[in-house]
Amino acid sequence: MKDVSIETITKAFLAYCSDDTDERTMFVLKSMVEHLHAFAKETQLTHDEWLTGINFLTKAGEITDSERNEFVLISDTTGMSTLVDMLGSQHAGTSSSVLGPFHILGAPELPIGGDLKRDNDGATVVIEGHVKDPDGKPITNAVLELWQTADNGLYSNQDDAQDEYNLRCSMKVDENGRYAMTTVRPSPYKIPDDGPVGDLLRATGRDAWRPSHLHFIMVAEGYKSLVTEVFPSDDVYLDRDAVFGVREDLIMEYQEKTDLDELPADLAVGRNVTQPYYKVDFDFILVPENT
Amino acid sequence: MKDVSIETITKAFLAYCSDDTDERTMFVLKSMVEHLHAFAKETQLTHDEWLTGINFLTKAGEITDSERNEFVLISDTTGMSTLVDMLGSQHAGTSSSVLGPFHILGAPELPIGGDLKRDNDGATVVIEGHVKDPDGKPITNAVLELWQTADNGLYSNQDDAQDEYNLRCSMKVDENGRYAMTTVRPSPYKIPDDGPVGDLLRATGRDAWRPSHLHFIMVAEGYKSLVTEVFPSDDVYLDRDAVFGVREDLIMEYQEKTDLDELPADLAVGRNVTQPYYKVDFDFILVPENT
Repeated sequence: MKDVSIETITKAFLAYCSDDTDERTMFVLKSMVEHLHAFAKETQLTHDEWLTGINFLTKAGEITDSERNEFVLISDTTGMSTLVDMLGSQHAGTSSSVLGPFHILGAPELPIGGDLKRDNDGATVVIEGHVKDPDGKPITNAVLELWQTADNGLYSNQDDAQDEYNLRCSMKVDENGRYAMTTVRPSPYKIPDDGPVGDLLRATGRDAWRPSHLHFIMVAEGYKSLVTEVFPSDDVYLDRDAVFGVREDLIMEYQEKTDLDELPADLAVGRNVTQPYYKVDFDFILVPENT
Repeated sequence: MKDVSIETITKAFLAYCSDDTDERTMFVLKSMVEHLHAFAKETQLTHDEWLTGINFLTKAGEITDSERNEFVLISDTTGMSTLVDMLGSQHAGTSSSVLGPFHILGAPELPIGGDLKRDNDGATVVIEGHVKDPDGKPITNAVLELWQTADNGLYSNQDDAQDEYNLRCSMKVDENGRYAMTTVRPSPYKIPDDGPVGDLLRATGRDAWRPSHLHFIMVAEGYKSLVTEVFPSDDVYLDRDAVFGVREDLIMEYQEKTDLDELPADLAVGRNVTQPYYKVDFDFILVPENT
């Protein structure tokens, strides 16, 4: 195609690709290039603006290393990560949410009712609930992982003052699908904002904060694994999470309590709580593997 | 906005941006994010495909350095660079085309009719023409720059065997707007295909070749500067330029000739041509600055 013009360039791109390109690859590329071109036309994108975009991506490449990926951050802060997440989990179960970069393997097992707070500063949170299928039937073989920030807003792998597995555990639910533990209230924190993503957030008056949350992974044979996070209903950043992770069904209530006798009997360690403490009830719903 | 869902996430992105964001910035970002989200929904993009995209950009960052920018190459090979080029030059003048990464400043001046071929291998090309305004009136104060590959497909700044300014010159047109010179026929060449862009070209059955071309910059006071390139009508890659640079009006005819007496008298140096030689006539049209 010699007559490349504003009208024909999208066709030219498609014409230049071979007919025996993998069908799904071609479908995704076609949609991507159609939208790229439509974006340029709709905005009548100038050469200077194009260069701003190229410099943005070049700077993202420069600040990316094995510990930090600015391209993931671009995806997170434009809602792409969350959208892909939601597209992949359209079912009757608990919503998924972003895994984030702070998960590590090998968290030690905590018995049901165990204490994760130990000597961590901050408010005590007693969280318990059940893992169920969409019909409300307990899933008795579920294993969960939980990880979260300390009171200072840092994960153990960001903070030399914390033990490697501080505020991280795995837990097997009981014959009723129940889990329960004592931990500390996590804190809001900022995503890395010293790179081009930070510049963009500032240029658009957005801040880099995420509402506080507890990360969970739920695995049970015969069910789809769930990667998610749950957020307190009173967090000030709930309405403007920098990475769009909040879903209506992932909001839990931190109920302020003082009466320890309200706690279940098996929360033995939980009885050494600071006062007042927060009680959280949160159930997870997993969907069968083949739905 | 707490109820981030597949339906509301684009709205959420817009709601999170401040009302006093620069208007044009917001307009471009809005269009970009709308198209990003539409792309993900239209393709029901999977997490694995998303990860392929992230890895593609991460690799592009890794191979980018001060000499080579893979993000520009992504833009070039998806037609974005050319589209932005065309959007910025919708006028009655000669089409613009990509500047490319091989232009250098300070090319020495060649008199009209001068010889750029010197001892370069390859077929002789005699090129001449006029620089005019859209009404056909000669532009007498135009200065052009020309740069091109040698017969081996390499520019002087890619090839230690060539002098710094080999096959590069500037030239002032005469009182009729005329330019003329003898040079060598340029060769097709491949864009760098050892990075993620090369992988994508191979996955879609596209090749990395560009048709041979002569690069030009035209500058004249009172007129819009023109950055362009002209292509021979018989190049095998004309219909599949890896970077979509070809436009109908940028195709010139390489007329094969043997009769030196057909050449204009001022092409003195040009008379030492190899036989047969190619004659090219190509006029440039510049548009006034305020159109």
